[in-house]
Amino acid sequence: MQLSQELKEDLLIRQRRLQEAMQLQGVEACLLATNVNVFYMSGIIYTGYYYLPATGQPIHFIKSPQSTPIDNAVYIRKPEQITEILKDRGIALPKSVLLETDSIPYNQIVRLLSILDLAQAQNASVWMRKIRSVKTNYEIAQVKQCARQHELVYSKIPEVYRKGMTDIELQVEIEKLMRLHGSVGTFRGYGDNMEIFMGSLLVGDNAQAPSPFDFALGGAGISPTVPLGANGSRIQPGQTIMVDMAGNYSPWMTDMTRVFSAGKTTELAYKAHQVSISIHEKTMEVFHPEYPCAELYNLALHIVKEEGLSDYFMGTTQQAKFIGHGLGLEINEPPVLTPRSKELLVENTVFALEPKFVLPGVGAVGVENTYLVTGKGLEKITLFEEQIIELS
Amino acid sequence: MQLSQELKEDLLIRQRRLQEAMQLQGVEACLLATNVNVFYMSGIIYTGYYYLPATGQPIHFIKSPQSTPIDNAVYIRKPEQITEILKDRGIALPKSVLLETDSIPYNQIVRLLSILDLAQAQNASVWMRKIRSVKTNYEIAQVKQCARQHELVYSKIPEVYRKGMTDIELQVEIEKLMRLHGSVGTFRGYGDNMEIFMGSLLVGDNAQAPSPFDFALGGAGISPTVPLGANGSRIQPGQTIMVDMAGNYSPWMTDMTRVFSAGKTTELAYKAHQVSISIHEKTMEVFHPEYPCAELYNLALHIVKEEGLSDYFMGTTQQAKFIGHGLGLEINEPPVLTPRSKELLVENTVFALEPKFVLPGVGAVGVENTYLVTGKGLEKITLFEEQIIELS
Repeated sequence: MQLSQELKEDLLIRQRRLQEAMQLQGVEACLLATNVNVFYMSGIIYTGYYYLPATGQPIHFIKSPQSTPIDNAVYIRKPEQITEILKDRGIALPKSVLLETDSIPYNQIVRLLSILDLAQAQNASVWMRKIRSVKTNYEIAQVKQCARQHELVYSKIPEVYRKGMTDIELQVEIEKLMRLHGSVGTFRGYGDNMEIFMGSLLVGDNAQAPSPFDFALGGAGISPTVPLGANGSRIQPGQTIMVDMAGNYSPWMTDMTRVFSAGKTTELAYKAHQVSISIHEKTMEVFHPEYPCAELYNLALHIVKEEGLSDYFMGTTQQAKFIGHGLGLEINEPPVLTPRSKELLVENTVFALEPKFVLPGVGAVGVENTYLVTGKGLEKITLFEEQIIELS
Repeated sequence: MQLSQELKEDLLIRQRRLQEAMQLQGVEACLLATNVNVFYMSGIIYTGYYYLPATGQPIHFIKSPQSTPIDNAVYIRKPEQITEILKDRGIALPKSVLLETDSIPYNQIVRLLSILDLAQAQNASVWMRKIRSVKTNYEIAQVKQCARQHELVYSKIPEVYRKGMTDIELQVEIEKLMRLHGSVGTFRGYGDNMEIFMGSLLVGDNAQAPSPFDFALGGAGISPTVPLGANGSRIQPGQTIMVDMAGNYSPWMTDMTRVFSAGKTTELAYKAHQVSISIHEKTMEVFHPEYPCAELYNLALHIVKEEGLSDYFMGTTQQAKFIGHGLGLEINEPPVLTPRSKELLVENTVFALEPKFVLPGVGAVGVENTYLVTGKGLEKITLFEEQIIELS
């Protein structure tokens, strides 16, 4: 495989953004080792270390063989060689360095600090997440390409549904559709404990079951080892089926939730679902670039209260305290749309808005869309029927 | 959900083993936070901290709601409350502590050390992996239960194969079989960079493609974001199809590789495959408890050299330097069967042996089985036809 010219140019934009942040902070070098950040900065995944000085070219210190030719690659066996190689090239060791201290295990950071002869590191994790939250044109094109496959898969859900299925049986059919439409399967999230398979499908009262993870909704799962999502219940007439399966058809993901129902569902379900759609419409209407995350949360909450639906909003027994989040190479990127956020939604941010309701005895309703912040307002990226789709 | 009496008793065995290790090391307390170790010690997954003193009962400091009742659970919002709660209960703060310093991010460990007012921690990651590598009877029963589903799924592969399929299309059919037979999907591995979906299916020369990860074989994958496994090639007559899909039907996994072929394959392929089977047979024959890992590696290598197959052993361009590994809650547990290992295979260790060959123009061959070390020798856990199975 070769990196395309377009990707190479985009990598230079990403490099410049990181170097600007480093110069602003007065940090001399950045050393990255997590898959997500190595991929973002180099266009490929390798086991090793991506080294970037505050000015000049990166060096890829690679421990594992890989087949994509890239410039400035040096093969190493262990990180101790990094400083030897820098010295050989006449590069002075940096006196300050950004390391992924929020993601990389303690002993690895201690080892890197010792190699670099530094007492401490600055936090690359936070900076990389901030830089990655504003997308380049290349990334935006990838997000849109992903959305087209995501929509196509959801459009085929009525074809694979059969009466009397369990939630897992329906999810498995959707998983197969996903894979045949190019889903890579793997679903990258931030935070070591956020284990999820290919997404979430919630039916009936399983939507009320709490999960130990910080996703919008939970579900009991089918095994104590993955306590999340579908639990094997048979889908009953009148129940809603909330489909929030991964949009991982390109490295840059989309997030989209749609609701299906087994036959007709309840009046309350249709009403609450319509309120979710209204929140989306109102958000698009009022939105301007640099809109505060907290205000979007409060706008949604205001509408929910007016409609008397607070008890069902974002769960019942466990209510999530956010209604949206950035996404890209990871499904949970900054900013997070919480009531106390101080962050603004700046141009070229991609984020998901997911005002949802959980109705006892029925299931979950509500729409989730992925949006792009443009120079004027919001562009909706995930384009698929938003009304509850009746299955038969 | 309730923990069964059997599981509760098993948790006491695991607790005793960890406390014995702590007493031996003179460590006063252990604080665990990764999903895998919280699950191993408590039987459930929660976001929070499992606290165990060198003698006495554990305390579960839980940050997220969860629905399984467990003893000694305390709900907290932040880890700073741990020391307050210990003080309130009249428990002196430990002067030495085991933390998962190989797995937990740097900043989290720094925060925990500050909370505990300690300058450094001892390494819980290494200890937990060592303790987990020797299975209890409960765990062994789970491994065997998993194997039965693993075998059942592989037995159905001929039914889902169709001529002219791509490797991905066949893999997707197997993934669906897996899920319908209880696979939880998620495939837990040790090491942040070891990203894999539901296993590996390698056909033809894609088996030679290097991967950045430390799996036995590679494969190019279908996307630069997951550079591993099937690459979308159409399966050609005479090629071998190596199926090494996850055995994740219970929290305790099995690892099993079998080889299929599109019609008849080459003489060299049948020969090399038979050599792999001979290595398994010879290993079972010579094995006794406390057998050195390195000697098993060398036994295999000796047979391979005698048969003149060294150039194909464990890859061609990239050759893995191990022929097996422990497994359980994670697919890559200690010990690893390498030529320079100092470790012994002690009773109740579960490990996978995977002598494989990669043949240019044909694909990969070789068998992988999961074994249990008994008091007398080896018990083969994964029982399924070992010859190359011809598909049509």
